[in-house]
This record gives sequence, structure tokens and C-alpha cells, in this order.
Amino acid sequence: MSGDLIRVSEIFGPTIQGEGALIGQPTVFVRTGGCDYRCKWCDTLHAVDSAYRDQWCPMTPEAVMMQVEILSGGQPLTVSLSGGNPAIQPLGDLIDLGHAEGYRFALETQGSIARDWFSTLDVLTLSPKPPSSGMAIDWQKLAECVEAAGPGTQVVLKVVIFDEADYAFARDAAARYPDLMLYLQPGNHTPPAPEDANGAIDMAGIMDRMRWLVDKVSSDRWYTATVLPQLHTLIWGNLRGV
Amino acid sequence: MSGDLIRVSEIFGPTIQGEGALIGQPTVFVRTGGCDYRCKWCDTLHAVDSAYRDQWCPMTPEAVMMQVEILSGGQPLTVSLSGGNPAIQPLGDLIDLGHAEGYRFALETQGSIARDWFSTLDVLTLSPKPPSSGMAIDWQKLAECVEAAGPGTQVVLKVVIFDEADYAFARDAAARYPDLMLYLQPGNHTPPAPEDANGAIDMAGIMDRMRWLVDKVSSDRWYTATVLPQLHTLIWGNLRGV
Ligand code: SF4
Ligand code: SF4
Repeated sequence: MSGDLIRVSEIFGPTIQGEGALIGQPTVFVRTGGCDYRCKWCDTLHAVDSAYRDQWCPMTPEAVMMQVEILSGGQPLTVSLSGGNPAIQPLGDLIDLGHAEGYRFALETQGSIARDWFSTLDVLTLSPKPPSSGMAIDWQKLAECVEAAGPGTQVVLKVVIFDEADYAFARDAAARYPDLMLYLQPGNHTPPAPEDANGAIDMAGIMDRMRWLVDKVSSDRWYTATVLPQLHTLIWGNLRGV
Repeated sequence: MSGDLIRVSEIFGPTIQGEGALIGQPTVFVRTGGCDYRCKWCDTLHAVDSAYRDQWCPMTPEAVMMQVEILSGGQPLTVSLSGGNPAIQPLGDLIDLGHAEGYRFALETQGSIARDWFSTLDVLTLSPKPPSSGMAIDWQKLAECVEAAGPGTQVVLKVVIFDEADYAFARDAAARYPDLMLYLQPGNHTPPAPEDANGAIDMAGIMDRMRWLVDKVSSDRWYTATVLPQLHTLIWGNLRGV
């Protein structure tokens, strides 16, 4: 048995990745519990709020990997490590175990905590939180995350956009990291309450923001940005575990 | 003035690419007129049926490039060459002109006609038509297209899926080209009539096929496939020119 325990909120899939660089790709998701942030519009409160802590299961890396292999039928695919903030957890051993079996690992974090095992990831998505989240960005920490990833890991940026201030924030992020792919994602104004796993979503509102964003990047001639909605939200609404 | 004239059905953008490998990326679209196929569910009949031929404008490569530069504000981005079947048209000079200005070129074709200038494309999407199209596949022609692209062009496959037979066809295509990314795209059962540019779409039907496809690739453990809807159809319906 190796090292520390991972606090797991849920493991599910395979389903398709609904966001960002790996959109549409079959993926098993390992969602960890706990977050150092409290974003106003967090859509995974069940993996953030310590009120749900008793639903988070401490698991060894071996146990997590076993569950992933059961779900994937033992056939390698991409494992998405998300949260909460998965950078809180000791995930290095899990990544090594999975790599030995041919699995790929993508991790998404807000970029507030850098870990040396970021360099073993296949894809690191840094999702710095814009003003509408109510959180303050620490650009230095984000830089440490990019640094930790190193040359062997594909690093991309993803910014959730609700309004003009968020959009300006994303432009700033892009200016700081001109060589990284940057994904703009319209925010979901109607995130699910943790106790309501099947909550309805405001599809029209999300689509309005999507059109607005496409118009913005077009008229600003910001052609290096990529604009993508949360596909899983469009397909399954706020239904959890798909 | 260089070479032959290009028959252009429409030039529009920038908007985001709604499908496949470049999904979400700001793009100007050059849609050419004319096609050697007649797919049952063709969603661009206005660029296929010769009844609309008088709406296709013969343009020099310079004139097309000028229009692209006006739309993009002179700032390079990806130009998507589509149709109809753009492989019918003499597009080599256009690609060279645009490359000289820093533009990138992606082309989508069914793979029935190989052209030597495919090797100058940045991305070539081959979209062999499945049984539901009513067309017969010529694998030899498809192989010639892959061959024509050569090492400098990213080649990807995209297959529209309506039913089980289409899915089996896609699996066959994947087995023939294990090294190419393959995109599965749920078909649109309610393509617009050419005279109805704003036709409503059966969103629920498309989403049903999307969920069905995700379930299929998951239960078949076909993890190298990527499943993506036509994003522009979800966002704008059948509205043309966005
Ligand atoms: S960083 Fe992510 S998981 Fe943490 S509170 Fe914000 S949205 Fe929720
Ligand atoms: S190949 Fe494409 S453009 Fe031609 S008829 Fe078929 S769907 Fe329409």
C-alpha cells in the first residue's frame, strides 16, 4: 500500500469529457473532496462544502485505480481528476499506478496550489477564477502551477465567463500566457444545489451567454481563444454522475 | 490573377467552428458550390443542388482571400473550406495566398476526390458518408485522400451517425485508420430546406442521439472515439451564416 489516502467524492464514467481541451473524449472521472476556494457559482458544492465531508471516502491510490479499472473494463482511457480542488490531494501515486497500465491523466484545478507531480500529468487544465466567482486571483500561484507542469505536460487555460469583468480577466490571462491554449466557457447561472442532483438548468440563458461570447471574441478579433459550452450540461442538464 | 475560378456559395464569419477537431475555434467559412454526392440528409443543399447554381459566384482566389481578410479584419485565423465538396474546386492558389498572410486552412470533404494541394492544408477532415446517406463508400478514394495529405497535414476522420449501421461503418473506418482521430457526430434528422434558412431543428432528437452515442462508445469501450454534436446547430439552430 502506497502513501496517503485520497479523499474521494465520486468516481464515475466512462462518459464523455464535456469541457475544454479533451471535449468529447471518453473519460472516467475521479472527483476529490475539499476545496480551498468558495466560488459563488460553484457547481460541485457536494465536493467542496465540508457539510458533505461524510460523503467523501478516504481511499488508497490502489483502491481508486481498481475502481477506475472496473468502470473502464480494464481498458485504458483518460482519467479526469477534478474536485473540489484535486491539487489538495496526494494524487502522484495514483497517476503512476495508472500510467503503468496505460491510462492517461488530466487534472483540472483553479491553480492555487502547485504540486511536483503535476509534471507527470498528461494534461493540466488551469482554471483561474474570474471576478464573478468572488475569489481573488493569485497570479504567482498560477505561475507556480505552470512551472510545476514542465515540458512533458500539456497545460491549457480555461476561464468561466459570466460577464464583461470575467471576459477582461480572461484577456489578461491570455496576455500573460500567449503560448497556452485558452478555453472560454459560458457560466451556468443555475448550478445545482448539492441536495438536488437532477436540477433543471437555464439552457436558454447558457445559450445566450454562448452567443454573446462568440460575438465578443469575433468582434474583438480574439482568434486564439476557443469558445466551448459545458457539453454535459447541455446533454444531461445538472444530472450528476453522467 | 491566378488560375481557375472558385465557385463560391457563401463566405461568412468569423464565428466558431461547430464540429470536429477545431470545435470552438474562431473561423471564417468559405463554402463552395457543387457536390459529386447526393446524401439523403444533406444539410447544405443550397451548396449542392444545381438548382441553386445561379447563387454560386465564380471568384478568383484573390477575390476570395480579400473577402476573408475583410471579414477577419486582416488578422489571421483559421479558414474552413467546406461545401458541397470543396475538393471539386481549384483551391490550391487560395491556400497559398492565405498562408503567405498567416491564415490557416482546414478543409472538409467526403473523401471521394483526392487533390495534390491537400498536402498544403493545415487540417484535412475526411468525412466518409455512412449507409444512411444512401451513398456508397469508395475506400480506395478515401485512401488516396489520406495519401495526398501527407505528413505535413493533420488528417482526422468524422462520421455522421444516425443508426446502428452508421455506427458499424464508423467502427470499420476506425479499424482501417487506427492512427487517425475519429469524431462521431449525431446526425441532424431535420436539416434545413434550402429555401428555409431559419428552419427549426429537433433539438430533443439530436440530444437523444448524442446520449445514445455516448452510451454506445462507453459500453463498447471504444475510448479512442470522440463524440461531439454540431455545436452551431445547438446554438443557432439551422440559421445560416453564423
Ligand atoms: S475552485 Fe472550483 S470546486 Fe472550488 S469552490 Fe470554486 S468552482 Fe467550486
Ligand atoms: S457529401 Fe456533403 S455536401 Fe455533398 S451531398 Fe453529402 S452531405 Fe451534402
